[in-house]
Amino acid sequence: MKLATEVLVPHGFKAGVTTAGLKPSGAADLALIVSELPAVGAGVFTTNRFAGANIALCREHLASGSVRAVVIHAGQANACTGKAGDAAALATARKAAEVLGVKVEEIVVGSTGVIGVLPAVEKISAGLEKIGTHGLSAGLFPELSKAIMTTDTKPKLASVRLKIGGKQVTLLGVAKGAGMINPSMGTMLGYVVTDAIIAKPLLKKALAQATESTFNCLTVDGDTSTSDMLVVMANGAAANAPIRAAGADLDKFTEALTAICQHLARAVAADGEGATRLVSVTVNNAKSFEDARLVAKAVASSSLVKCAIFGRDPNWGRIAAAVGYSGGTFDPAKVRIAIGKDLVFEKGQPALQDRMALSKYLMESPEVDISISLAAGKATATVWTCDFSLDYVRINAHYTT
Amino acid sequence: MKLATEVLVPHGFKAGVTTAGLKPSGAADLALIVSELPAVGAGVFTTNRFAGANIALCREHLASGSVRAVVIHAGQANACTGKAGDAAALATARKAAEVLGVKVEEIVVGSTGVIGVLPAVEKISAGLEKIGTHGLSAGLFPELSKAIMTTDTKPKLASVRLKIGGKQVTLLGVAKGAGMINPSMGTMLGYVVTDAIIAKPLLKKALAQATESTFNCLTVDGDTSTSDMLVVMANGAAANAPIRAAGADLDKFTEALTAICQHLARAVAADGEGATRLVSVTVNNAKSFEDARLVAKAVASSSLVKCAIFGRDPNWGRIAAAVGYSGGTFDPAKVRIAIGKDLVFEKGQPALQDRMALSKYLMESPEVDISISLAAGKATATVWTCDFSLDYVRINAHYTT
Repeated sequence: MKLATEVLVPHGFKAGVTTAGLKPSGAADLALIVSELPAVGAGVFTTNRFAGANIALCREHLASGSVRAVVIHAGQANACTGKAGDAAALATARKAAEVLGVKVEEIVVGSTGVIGVLPAVEKISAGLEKIGTHGLSAGLFPELSKAIMTTDTKPKLASVRLKIGGKQVTLLGVAKGAGMINPSMGTMLGYVVTDAIIAKPLLKKALAQATESTFNCLTVDGDTSTSDMLVVMANGAAANAPIRAAGADLDKFTEALTAICQHLARAVAADGEGATRLVSVTVNNAKSFEDARLVAKAVASSSLVKCAIFGRDPNWGRIAAAVGYSGGTFDPAKVRIAIGKDLVFEKGQPALQDRMALSKYLMESPEVDISISLAAGKATATVWTCDFSLDYVRINAHYTT
Repeated sequence: MKLATEVLVPHGFKAGVTTAGLKPSGAADLALIVSELPAVGAGVFTTNRFAGANIALCREHLASGSVRAVVIHAGQANACTGKAGDAAALATARKAAEVLGVKVEEIVVGSTGVIGVLPAVEKISAGLEKIGTHGLSAGLFPELSKAIMTTDTKPKLASVRLKIGGKQVTLLGVAKGAGMINPSMGTMLGYVVTDAIIAKPLLKKALAQATESTFNCLTVDGDTSTSDMLVVMANGAAANAPIRAAGADLDKFTEALTAICQHLARAVAADGEGATRLVSVTVNNAKSFEDARLVAKAVASSSLVKCAIFGRDPNWGRIAAAVGYSGGTFDPAKVRIAIGKDLVFEKGQPALQDRMALSKYLMESPEVDISISLAAGKATATVWTCDFSLDYVRINAHYTT
């Protein structure tokens, strides 16, 4: 599905942004997404056992009824912060509810930054008052996508408009994430807003389906964060014939949601800490989607494969080694591996014909495609990652200090 | 068990080393370990499905009867090389058998280097003839430990002498490995020779036991190699009362073998590609050894934890995040984490009292100890790794080219 080239904002959604003083850099660090109407909400969250204090609060609030707003603060992750962290998450939600004149259960809280450091609630509260209702605008989503960044170098935003149930329906998504990226049943911070009318169980289903082949096919460094969340809000302002059952409209909506999520997941990989290349690893002819993803993720997670791509080194043996230890189902003699258009391994032995052409591809292409055929079935999966550069180490050797 | 400070060589074992022209650097690259008597042999090998051509040959030969010699060639891994690779491994074993006047089934072949490149058999053959039987000497084990190195910066060698069955018994081990280190049921190249008399099933059992808590508790980069092997040869020259059943003598032998393997595994971690610190991650009070190792390996494999140690950054939240996604069994509220002697996390919240003392420890200690208590049982495991430095990326960005 073709995404919009400009930023399309669904009816009835506004954003707000301010500098609350949470980031040492002094950049904008507090943001609000607000729906003018009560919206149907669904979310997927990190599987990390040390999930942030805000994660439990989000689960509870999303289960309780409609959702009106998301508060996102960047700088401190509010994970591993004990009871003081729980209190900070609740105080944040309460203040947002007060400022916006909605119920506390209608607030979702997103949090990102250093683990084990309590965010300053008084700064968040003052920031929320500063934004107020007067500071909200449909035009502020690009600013919001910058305010939620930490080690990201580029904001990540995607939107699409399509006809569903006789009306124009718009979806807009934002995400952040560059390091500690290995989402599992969740993601980095990702928010999608839409004006579609859709029943909550179907929204949940569409979200689960979209996540599986997008954010759950993404890795930067194999570290699953404590703060991952992807939340979608549908406020119904498009006045489309409601999506209340499986069928063509739900399929169209799910396809649009998947397109947004795929764009954002690829953008997170491309902006991985220190990245110089976006790397797509596609596994074809696998026994199942899960098996294809298992093998693709092993290759995409291999430090050696990622260092070789950083060095523009056609060292395909490392790809074979990662396939070999992935635990996937295949006959080693039938596996084929290609980099770009160059077949490098087939029938258990080297197959590269033109090393110069492959080197040129690695030197010049901003995206590197690795494809692997397992000859074990018909399923396919693509996992996105980035190369492993000197800057990844530089960035992560000195993050808290 | 206290290892010897000098290199002790078991009776009846000799080594040979030459430069066959396999390494582009022109360094020594071909080595032989020879037993004057037929030895009992046991081995553990990589679980990688693209195991090197020599691995199948080794399994077959070790199963068939006694073992007389190990040939090790460094420069090309002879993995993913198809039928030509199988032929190269067999030709290598045949030539060694011819030169030494033993049966081809008594030869074990070890191989390390670039994957997907066939080693030059004619160079290996010429090199084996150059060593011949006249070139073998008990004094050459230190030279041999250098010849098998690739990206290693230090040779790895350990020996121990103890009384078993009324006689002095000696064990000597060598290993190589710095990158693509995440052994699973095998290891990098590791060879242990001993003059003990021990029955083959008991030697296998002792080896399996020693491997579990040493080489299988080691990771540099999470990449399981295609060429891992750990082989032990016992030639009986010590004339001890034979170890034929479980009991105190087998326990003593296993303890000595474990001490050798632990020394070598730690040496591999300390010499990990680009390493500036040896890192030991110990998990205590776990439900089982397997569970303790699972959690310790997640922490030891985290790129973010390893980058933080390289940066001397007391960013303990990354350790908690890795424990959180490890899949281990624990109650998050009961987990305790310490770095060196400093408790950093307890009761679900930060516990660090003296950040300066911890920074000093990270700056000054050549070894960094991370300990985690799960409060879920009585089992313990230690996993060894190294930090993740700029040099790891530099080394691996340009390995084949």
